[in-house]
Formats: sequence, C-alpha cells, structure tokens
Amino acid sequence: MSEPRRSIATVCLSGTLEDKLAAASAAGFDGVEIFENDLIASAASPAEIRAYCRDLGLSIDLYQPFRDFEAVPPARFRQNLRRAERKFDVMEQLGTDLVLVCSTVSPEAVDDDELAAEQLRELAERAQRRGMRVAYEALAWGRFVNTYEHSWRIVRRADHPALGLCLDSFHVLSRGGDPALIRTIPGEKLFYLQLADAPQLDMDVLQWSRHHRLFPGQGSFDLTTFAGNVLDAGYSGPLSLEVFNDVFRQADPKPAAVDAMRSLRLLEERLGLPVAEPAPDLDGYAFAEVVADPGTAARLADGLAALGFAETGEHRSKPVRRWEQGGARVLINTSGAGPDTAEIGALAVESADPLRSARRAEAMSSPILPRERGPQEAGLVSVAAPDGTGVFFCDTAADDGWRGDFRDTAAPAAGLITGIDHVSLTQPFDHFDEAALFCRSVLGLEPEEVTEYAAPFGMVRNRGMVDATRSVRIALNGALVRRGEWAPAVRDPQHIAFTCTDVLAAAERLRASGAPVLPIPDNYYDDLDARFDLDPDLLGALRRGSVLYDRDAGGEFLHLFTELFGSRVFLELVQRVGDYAGYGVGNAPVRMAAHRRQRMTAFGR
Amino acid sequence: MSEPRRSIATVCLSGTLEDKLAAASAAGFDGVEIFENDLIASAASPAEIRAYCRDLGLSIDLYQPFRDFEAVPPARFRQNLRRAERKFDVMEQLGTDLVLVCSTVSPEAVDDDELAAEQLRELAERAQRRGMRVAYEALAWGRFVNTYEHSWRIVRRADHPALGLCLDSFHVLSRGGDPALIRTIPGEKLFYLQLADAPQLDMDVLQWSRHHRLFPGQGSFDLTTFAGNVLDAGYSGPLSLEVFNDVFRQADPKPAAVDAMRSLRLLEERLGLPVAEPAPDLDGYAFAEVVADPGTAARLADGLAALGFAETGEHRSKPVRRWEQGGARVLINTSGAGPDTAEIGALAVESADPLRSARRAEAMSSPILPRERGPQEAGLVSVAAPDGTGVFFCDTAADDGWRGDFRDTAAPAAGLITGIDHVSLTQPFDHFDEAALFCRSVLGLEPEEVTEYAAPFGMVRNRGMVDATRSVRIALNGALVRRGEWAPAVRDPQHIAFTCTDVLAAAERLRASGAPVLPIPDNYYDDLDARFDLDPDLLGALRRGSVLYDRDAGGEFLHLFTELFGSRVFLELVQRVGDYAGYGVGNAPVRMAAHRRQRMTAFGR
Repeated sequence: MSEPRRSIATVCLSGTLEDKLAAASAAGFDGVEIFENDLIASAASPAEIRAYCRDLGLSIDLYQPFRDFEAVPPARFRQNLRRAERKFDVMEQLGTDLVLVCSTVSPEAVDDDELAAEQLRELAERAQRRGMRVAYEALAWGRFVNTYEHSWRIVRRADHPALGLCLDSFHVLSRGGDPALIRTIPGEKLFYLQLADAPQLDMDVLQWSRHHRLFPGQGSFDLTTFAGNVLDAGYSGPLSLEVFNDVFRQADPKPAAVDAMRSLRLLEERLGLPVAEPAPDLDGYAFAEVVADPGTAARLADGLAALGFAETGEHRSKPVRRWEQGGARVLINTSGAGPDTAEIGALAVESADPLRSARRAEAMSSPILPRERGPQEAGLVSVAAPDGTGVFFCDTAADDGWRGDFRDTAAPAAGLITGIDHVSLTQPFDHFDEAALFCRSVLGLEPEEVTEYAAPFGMVRNRGMVDATRSVRIALNGALVRRGEWAPAVRDPQHIAFTCTDVLAAAERLRASGAPVLPIPDNYYDDLDARFDLDPDLLGALRRGSVLYDRDAGGEFLHLFTELFGSRVFLELVQRVGDYAGYGVGNAPVRMAAHRRQRMTAFGR
Repeated sequence: MSEPRRSIATVCLSGTLEDKLAAASAAGFDGVEIFENDLIASAASPAEIRAYCRDLGLSIDLYQPFRDFEAVPPARFRQNLRRAERKFDVMEQLGTDLVLVCSTVSPEAVDDDELAAEQLRELAERAQRRGMRVAYEALAWGRFVNTYEHSWRIVRRADHPALGLCLDSFHVLSRGGDPALIRTIPGEKLFYLQLADAPQLDMDVLQWSRHHRLFPGQGSFDLTTFAGNVLDAGYSGPLSLEVFNDVFRQADPKPAAVDAMRSLRLLEERLGLPVAEPAPDLDGYAFAEVVADPGTAARLADGLAALGFAETGEHRSKPVRRWEQGGARVLINTSGAGPDTAEIGALAVESADPLRSARRAEAMSSPILPRERGPQEAGLVSVAAPDGTGVFFCDTAADDGWRGDFRDTAAPAAGLITGIDHVSLTQPFDHFDEAALFCRSVLGLEPEEVTEYAAPFGMVRNRGMVDATRSVRIALNGALVRRGEWAPAVRDPQHIAFTCTDVLAAAERLRASGAPVLPIPDNYYDDLDARFDLDPDLLGALRRGSVLYDRDAGGEFLHLFTELFGSRVFLELVQRVGDYAGYGVGNAPVRMAAHRRQRMTAFGR
C-alpha cells in the first residue's frame, strides 16, 4: 500500500489563515481543510487563498463546516439552500469540491429521517450541478443524528452520488461507538476521514470535543482500529487531522504542525503503512550530558565525586569531561552556559542500530542535527527533542563508539551506583503532549499513566516514557497551567536519577562525607510513620539519611536527592525493591519545597 | 449580628506553608485550615508553625484531611486508630483541636452505617481524651456516604459530643443537594463550615472539585442560601474558604488572599451581615483616561478629532488633555508611558455618592490610592482594579467636581457620539475571575453570561459586568490558557466603545475624512450575506464603512473599530438597536485578525 495523502484542518493551528497554511506546508502536509472562520477573518479573497495554497503545494480538500441544514420546515429550508449556494460560491473560488455538513443541533429541526434525507438529496443535487460533493457527519451531540450508523442510514436513504459520509474518530469513539460496522460501508460513500485523539475524560462531550482533542497517539483512543476499518472499507481520501485544543490554538503553528505530521506517521506505522523503519531496541543510557558554567560545573563535579563517581576522560576537542561509576556516565560540558546555569543538554541511549535510529527519527519529522566532528571522532548522530534537549543514538561497545572521542584519564569507579534509572525533564505546560509523542514516535518508547499532583507552586503532571525492557525511562513533568511568575526558586527542574543498589548505605556514606544531600524535614517522616507504620529502625535510617520512601502494589522505592547545581539541575539515587514501577512522585512536593528552601537561603531571603 | 470569624484553607493558596500563612494574615483572615501536605513539606515543626501563626494573629481552626477512616474491618480499624493518634500528636503541637474526617472512598470499607458510627464514636472518644473534636464530612464522591443528610444520620447514630459535622458547600451543591434540611441540624453539631463556589460544569465531580472550585461570588452556586441555612441553624464557627483551583495554586498568594477575603465580604453582605455600606447607584461613565507617550497621544488625539471629539480642557497641574463629544469624555495623559505605548490608565464612573463608594471599596479590600492633588483640585478618590487600572468615583455635576481640575479651552463638540457604552479590558488569563469579583464587590456590578470564542491566537472568554440600569458596562476579556509567546501583534488589547446614534452615518463621515477606521475584509460581508440575508443596501453600507453587524433575540448591533493607537488601545463606535444585550464578540476574531494585519504592515513584515 502506498503512502496516503495527509491533510490537516486549519482549526488545529494558531494564527491567521496565512500563518496556518504556511505551517502546514512546511511540515509536509499535502492538503488542508479550511475552517470557514479562518477564511472570513482573512483579507485575502478565496481566489487568492487558492493561489497561495497552490504555491505552497497544498490542496484544499474540504471546506467546513456547514451547520444546521437538514430536517427543517420549508421556509427555513429555502433559507438554508440560499446559504448553501453562497458557500458553494466561496468553494468555487477556493477550487475545492467537498463541503462538510454536520448533523443538525437546531431547535427548529424535527426528528424525521425521511425529511433529512430528502433535504440532503436536494443539497447534493445542487452541489453536483456545480461539480461539488457533500460529506455528512454525525456530531456526537447531534440533536437526532449522533452516530455514524444513523448518518449512514440517512445517506443511504438519500441515495445521491454527490452525498457521502464524513467520519470523525472523535464523534464515534467519544460515545463509545463500535467502529466495526464501518467496514460494511462501501468505500466510495466514505467521502472524508477526520482523525482526532483525546484523553479519556468524564465530561460533557461538546466541551470535551471543543477543548481537549489531541493528535493521534497523544490520547487514549484506539485510532489504529478505527482508521484501519475506514481503510479496509476502501476509503481512498486523505488522512486528515481535525483537533480542537486550547493549547494548540495558542501555540506556534510551525512546531505544532510538525507535531501533527509526526502523529500521523506514527498512526500510519501502526496501520502497517510504509512510513519508517521500526525503532531499534534500546539498551539503557549511554550517558547524560549536563551543560554548565565553569563554577556550577565544578560544584557538580564535586557532587559527583561525593556520590562516588570518578572523572575518567576528557574530550579531544571540546570542553567536556566524562564522569563514571558502574554503568552510569555523566558528561559535563562547560561551553556556552551563563552564570549559575546548568541544564541537561543531551541524553544518549544505547541503540541496537544507531544509524537506523537516525533514519527513523528523520522519517518521524526529527531531522538529524548538524554536528562538528574532529578528525578522530565518532560519527555520533543526534536529534533535538521538542524542548531542545539533544538525543544521541549510541553503541558504546562498538570499536568506533563515542568513548573514542575522549582521552581516558582514569578507570571508572565501582560503587553502589550502577547506571542511570531515568532522566527527568520538565516540559513547558504547552509542550507536554508534544514531548510524549516525540518519545513515542522517534524513540519507540511507550507512555505510562499520567499522574497529577499538587505541588507547592501549582499542579504538576508526570508521565513516564519507557522502552519495552524498561532499560530507558524518561520522566516528563509539566505544570497543568503555565506556572505563575510569582514563585522564585526553581524553574523547570531537570534531574538524572541513578540506579543505586543500596540507597540507605549510600546515604550513610554521603552523610559522613558532607555531600550536598537535600535535607528532608522531620514532618515528612512523622507522616511516613503514620501512613506506613514502618519498622522503627528503617524509619530512623530514612530520617537520618534524608531518604524518601514510597510503596506500590509491586514493591518499594527508596530515593534521595542532592541539592541543586545551578538553578535547575539536581541528582537522585533510586533503589527499586521488587517491581516498584513509579517515580515516587508523591514525594515530589516535599522535594520541591526543600529545593526552594535551598535557593531562598542561597539568596539570603 | 456581629462580624463572623473568617478563615481560609492553606490549600487555596500557592507557595510553601509559610508563604500561605503570611498571605492569609496580610489579607486580614482570622484563622486557617492547615492542609496536611503543606505541613509535611515544611521544615518548621508543628510547634514552630503554631508560634508563627500566633505571631501573625491567625488561629489554626482545622487540621485536614483525615481520609478513609470508617466502616473498615477490625485490622484496618486498628491501623487507622494508630494513624489518627499520630495526627492527634501533630494537632497537639499545632495547638488545634479540630480534625476533618472525610467520608471514606476506600475499597476496604463496607456499606454499614452502624459500623461507621461505632468506629467514628471510638475516634471521637479518643479525640475527646486529648481535648479534641472530629468533624465528619460527606464527600460528593464518598463511596457510601456522599450527602450531608447521610453524614448527619451517622453522626446522630454515633451520638458523641466530640463528633460533629463539617459542611462543605461544594459537596452539597455540586450534587444538586437541597440545603434546606441543614436548618434542622442543631447548631452545636455543626462543627465547621467550608465554602467554595464553582462554575456549573457537566463533568466528573471529583475532577470538578479538585480543579475548578472558585471563591464565593465567582461561580454559579447559591452560597447565600446555603450559608444562610448554616447560620440559621446556629453555627457559630468561622466562615472558611476551601477552594481547589489550578490557577490559584500557581498565583501569587498575596493578591489571591485579598481576593479570597473580598469574596467572603461580598457573601457576608448578601447574608445581611454588617460588612460595608451598600454600593451607591451608578450613572454612566464620567471619563476614561488613556496614558500614552507623546507620539501615540498625538495620533490618538487626531483619531478622536476625526471621530468628532473636541479638545476642551487641559489639566491644571498634570500633562493631561480632556477631549469631549456629547457625554463621552476621554483624558489623554502623557506622563510616564514608553514609546509606542498607550493603555487605559483609568476609568471613572458617576457615583450617587463618591465618598460612600470609596468607603465601600475600602471595606471590600480595595484601599483608596494615594493621590497628588494641586491646591485648587477636586478630592477625587480612586482605587486600583486587580489589573492595575484606576477606578475613580465621580460626581461630574458637583460644584467641586473633577472638571474643575481642568482649565476649559473649548466647548464640548456635539455629534453622533453621545457617551461611553463600555470599556473593554483584557485580563491576564489567571486574573479573570478576580477582576469579575472586583467589579461585583467594589462597584456593585452584576456579571453577565460568560461567552467563549475561538480567536486567531487562542480561545478567549468574555464577560460583561453591568450595573442595574446598564449605564456602566465593563467588558472583561481573557485568554483561556496563557497566550503563547509566538504571536506578534496585539497583546492584551483594551478599548473604549462609544455610544453612537448612527454608526453607518458616522462611517460615511469617517471614510470621507480619511479617519483610521479598521478595514474589514470582504469575506466577512460575504458570510454576513449568507447568514442573515440582509437588505442589499444595508449590506453595501456595512461593507463600504467597515461596519460590523450582529443580531440577538433583543435587537441588532452595528459597530466599527479604529486602528490601534500604540500596541494595544483602540476605539469602537457601537449602536444598539432595540434591546441588543451583547458586545458583538462573534465579530471579535475578525477584528483581531485585522489589527494584526495593521501591526504586521506597520512593522514591514
């Protein structure tokens, strides 16, 4: 099967119509649905928009929406036909032949399928005279017609070649509709397919639809089955995205359109269409890189040393030092960071086939980053996550692996730390879903459940992204609403969590060495005692070591944090006992308050 | 009846526990409910928090919450008692005697009122031994107990002096509960009253409660009846706010606490408690003041002249010019604005008693602004709205009115403009409800329906605030989520809308004079024709004049906009035909796109 045509509704994106069209074209879409309000606000005539789309390589696949047309009394029907002819005029100038008609929500309409079919037939007849077609869609909140089965009965009854169905995944799946019967509809009567995902929410379906739709792969709908049925029925039109989302409506349309394209390619892959090579298996982290100014880098190096890391190498051509303990590797890069600044500049995963990982990333709309490379250096490939973090694909064990870029200065240390458990990245509130989709499509990670919690400075959501063997975990965090300006202290924290075989023992050593462990207040331990009735010795050890504790159905979790290095980066030691699956997010508010105390003290407040 | 004590739950506010307590005290609260997670994250011991509250003049009225206690098997019950004793330890150190127990949601619990009562009696007995009391609350999503009537049956059955009820308006009103029976509960068994408002949403009640509660007067619950019943029953404890809201959780706690206090005072007024003098009647706008740099001020003056205004006076001591036409007055103030800047610095309303308005404002937590005053100048009083806009209370006709501050230089012009219809102010997304509450409590305005619409750069909501005679209208606008950084052009637009007796005639004159009328695209008029089938002459006149059109059940609305002066201020002429009640918000996206074109052209993009 060849690649399908890909379209996007202008309503998915922010800006003027011209902004949206330019963004859709730049992201590689073949066509667009033009939302009427976008056209109405434009100073360009429909003919000018047609020419603009042609120059951008975009077809106009659908004009939408036409509302409240059918099953109305005769006087209103005459007015509606007049209204339709005006819109056909617009479509003629736009050079598009398909109009979307949504099932009526009008209080004037009557519950009469025969009348609805008859009036739609008349509309189709008029459309056909002008070389146009009508796609009828059942809104989930349609007054009488709100399932695709019902809209199909009406289209069948109208029986006109210029009248067919538009299927929208949201309208079907939000109502818990069964998409199986789609396969029984003749493909030539399926005029258009609109795709939208959504989180599972228990709320009014109209509000859900208008504010909370997502691109495919970002929500919890089974779009693979849905779209698969549509294709199996013989549909040959574009796969078109129609996503109403408050956040996307205010986001820069250029990256949003790229995100949209990525979501379609991931869906196509699941549909078995030829899109990209499969994601190679991953096998843990090769390294994580922190970019810091020299002063902060020195404090971070001291912190790593206190944790038992050794500096094992320096980069041949760049100001980068390598620190290691067991399989945990941290690069400290001192180029280009401002004062009091540290951030996770890159993470590197072990790929079974780095070049294939790179080709897949490119197919998933993540171009390989250009990279300066010294004469003896490895051909490392990396891409940029939506938040700018670099992602490297590595094969550390290969003869020409990345380690060769470093002059070895010492042997790796051995200690309680054995590797990187996860890297935690805070996303801007309006890029959270985009980041998850990037991990899913480019890296082949799967999303875990979203956890929401109340933190001292606002609500936060957390979602782990993991590979099949849980060797690579990325914890995404983000505020639910954009964070207020008032809170001082830590913004968009990031951290590297190291796997530790015995956090309590590590805590004892760190205490003895005066390492910058984040102090956890007594109140926390008093509550832990009330909640878990822990063995007093264990509770005492936790308290002495500022070790936090959590428990789930699978096991236990012990973890401790360092203080901040710079304004946002810190380290964590984690010990998973049994099959504990989470990240201890219940303890995150305590950690955040403690980091704020550290910063406030540092600034003398 | 004397003033009640006023409390606030720490969960309403953002920050660390110490931040929250300081903000509550500064806003004038008498007490707090301490939310356990706030304490757990604090480095201060409970005894230190007790001392800190004492220094701040705050009592600790409640410790909360204790969850999933009752109706459980014996082993779990023993664990729960142990957990409770630990929390009593904390309460003892805090110096508080009341704990909130929420009705269980535990899967271990059983549906057995007798068991629930028996276990709560045991808890109350243990509390009593330590001089404490237990307030039992029915959560709206409680597994078995989810109405106050049910929780009251259990408390009555337990029959222990240290066990009473906590009533929370959200849990009762979100389920559509009837608060009338509250009056039948003996006052001494009502241990605590929590107040929260909310918008009417059709969604899962737990999510509604956790994310969308509002302060009283900001939502649509009838809190007056609810709280009135509680007071009538003989409740003598504090009026306490418990509001979970994603936006308040990330907002600066100091103004949020002031807003909370204002909401309580407004509620108390409605309860007939002695809080503030009633808001005096208003009678339209005295003036609106625009602060602008000299260049922008000159362009605005030219624009006003083109609209038929005359410059009629200059201020005796400040760089302020007065412009007038009919009853419409605009002050242009050229002090202190940066380049390309204009903003609405103040609006002034005609009050039947300006000094009483001022006293009321102070009672509603809006202090009178200090004001420099020349020797011959009027004693104008003003307060600051939450967005910083000044609000003056005037009596223009008085001998010592504000006009005396100006040297008259010309007579007011007479023309098609007769007054100010409304002033439109864009609020930051996280201060929208605060602004509405300010208008309601300080100015005595009533809120109109909230309208949401999709604008080119994101979703916007609009709410009119009007006085009883509709002589003063303030249109509040705000983004639903914080606006993206990507969109150039207009940020937080503000405008003054003038009442015009004949917008089409005005448009003809403006066209002839080359005034800076905002051009509206042809596409808009083509759609208007399709939608309304207007008389062709009217449609032609609208199109020629760039006049926009709307219609509602009461009448018609004709309006036109000027271009922007500076980056955010523009003017509007409006004509209400019949009883049209709105603001033409359906046309706002067209206006926004047109203003963006103006700015993009100005910047040569």
